[in-house]
Amino acid sequence: MAPPFLKTREEYQRLVDSVDTFLLDCDGVIYHGPKVVEGVKTVLDMFRAAGKKVIFVTNNGTKSRRKLCDTLNKLDLGATIEECFGSAYASAVYLAEVMNFPKDKKVYVVGEEGLEEELDEFGILHCGGSDPEDRNFKPPIIWDDFKPDPTVGAVVCAFDSWINYKKMAKAMSYLRDDPNVVLIQTNTDPTFPTHGTVYPGSGSLSIGIVNASKREPLVIGKPNKHMMDAVLAHHKFDPSRALMVGDNLLTDIEFGLNSNIRTLLVMGGVTKHEQIYGENPSKTVPDLVIESFGNFAVLADKA
Amino acid sequence: MAPPFLKTREEYQRLVDSVDTFLLDCDGVIYHGPKVVEGVKTVLDMFRAAGKKVIFVTNNGTKSRRKLCDTLNKLDLGATIEECFGSAYASAVYLAEVMNFPKDKKVYVVGEEGLEEELDEFGILHCGGSDPEDRNFKPPIIWDDFKPDPTVGAVVCAFDSWINYKKMAKAMSYLRDDPNVVLIQTNTDPTFPTHGTVYPGSGSLSIGIVNASKREPLVIGKPNKHMMDAVLAHHKFDPSRALMVGDNLLTDIEFGLNSNIRTLLVMGGVTKHEQIYGENPSKTVPDLVIESFGNFAVLADKA
Repeated sequence: MAPPFLKTREEYQRLVDSVDTFLLDCDGVIYHGPKVVEGVKTVLDMFRAAGKKVIFVTNNGTKSRRKLCDTLNKLDLGATIEECFGSAYASAVYLAEVMNFPKDKKVYVVGEEGLEEELDEFGILHCGGSDPEDRNFKPPIIWDDFKPDPTVGAVVCAFDSWINYKKMAKAMSYLRDDPNVVLIQTNTDPTFPTHGTVYPGSGSLSIGIVNASKREPLVIGKPNKHMMDAVLAHHKFDPSRALMVGDNLLTDIEFGLNSNIRTLLVMGGVTKHEQIYGENPSKTVPDLVIESFGNFAVLADKA
Repeated sequence: MAPPFLKTREEYQRLVDSVDTFLLDCDGVIYHGPKVVEGVKTVLDMFRAAGKKVIFVTNNGTKSRRKLCDTLNKLDLGATIEECFGSAYASAVYLAEVMNFPKDKKVYVVGEEGLEEELDEFGILHCGGSDPEDRNFKPPIIWDDFKPDPTVGAVVCAFDSWINYKKMAKAMSYLRDDPNVVLIQTNTDPTFPTHGTVYPGSGSLSIGIVNASKREPLVIGKPNKHMMDAVLAHHKFDPSRALMVGDNLLTDIEFGLNSNIRTLLVMGGVTKHEQIYGENPSKTVPDLVIESFGNFAVLADKA
């Protein structure tokens, strides 16, 4: 059955009254590229003033929470680090708090400084990543240079603009040689949007490592429940009074469904009206739909 | 039903008498790493002297035929360039002779000099590849540097030890922006064997481009029939008197089955005895099995 499309002030108010924690996707909900969605700043301020918890939940695995916060605040959105939850941070939370990753083991990082910063936050040892020895690889391949570090216990893959053959081969060799080494992908987004188009995303950079190692990876980011496990391990809130807000059926809305959290789809992002209300609608159905997250701003007028 | 396991001189002779063209996988059939399989040199010389055609059919997409020939002759196998058929050459044949790739269009190459050399052989224009502008990419990413060449009509992906984000993003953007640009993978081998182990292979380097572009690639190499189409476009022979010899069920034997060519599996490579004769045999069944391709050397004694 098609979900209700919220249109009136009363419908908005009823929803907001039923929610204590707003889990918000960023691109497509809060902003489109460099432009903040109209009304969103008012909505965020209003929710915070009403004591509601706001958590920005993004699959971005390159940026640390600190960097995500900077990005939001360059748009004047008044974010705090505690409100930011990216898949790099979620991966660190998952390793530290869900998996109890051993303090004497290292993570081999296929990723950038943002991921390393989050691992540092939890005292998780790591190698690879921004190490110039791996970043500045130039062929020819000298196989004997690929010295494995015997203390590596996990490979974590995020977006890495320095991806190269050495990084792929080292990551793969840890997985090949020891079945106890786990493979984690911060997220599997095949592309990411920028400059009005899309380019290869995190999932497309690490799929080669998955393919070569023939391993089933643990994927942290939306739509996987692991991301919610990490959010809940860190933020205590009542899931029955939380709402996942997003523009993408396959990441955001599936994420809510997989985690048993109510979902609100916003239009104006990647989802088309007919995917919800057309003759052959998507099998992924949100609980509620709204034109824009900024629409809640009308509730601020009542004061 | 389990295939016959050839063991006697008479069985060997009967098979050889029925074959005019031997299509030979290299690693696992002709040599294991740096070591030629015992008897193989004698067998090759004997077959050539008897007027049989020998074609080395390999998924290696890095080396040109010239380089493959050098590799075989460093092992003193008396190969000629005409006997060598790698997936880089097969891709060039396919573009030129099967697809009639336009003379005024370019191939964007994710690969090395061997592939470029084969494209040059057919007068196919190309860019990317060994161009230092793409090879020597260093982050940060400056998107405006990714200037697309409007004459690109195909992306061809092979093993490329210089793989980097710029190459992936450029390849993907050609495919994203123009549905007429075709995506070709020389082969999809997930790993390749070296130094007694395996490392990420061609298929694992280009799977990210496939994933990001959401395209169905045209895969040339074994086990795909395209490789046989290219072999047959170049070498004229009677398929009913040809034999594909290999050690790998999923590449070599499937290749023969897909191309309607008889197959001979050699043991001592990647396939285990129980995969053929065990209780749960592989669904891929060769026509015949032999312990080693070198076993045919006994036939040379009769002279």
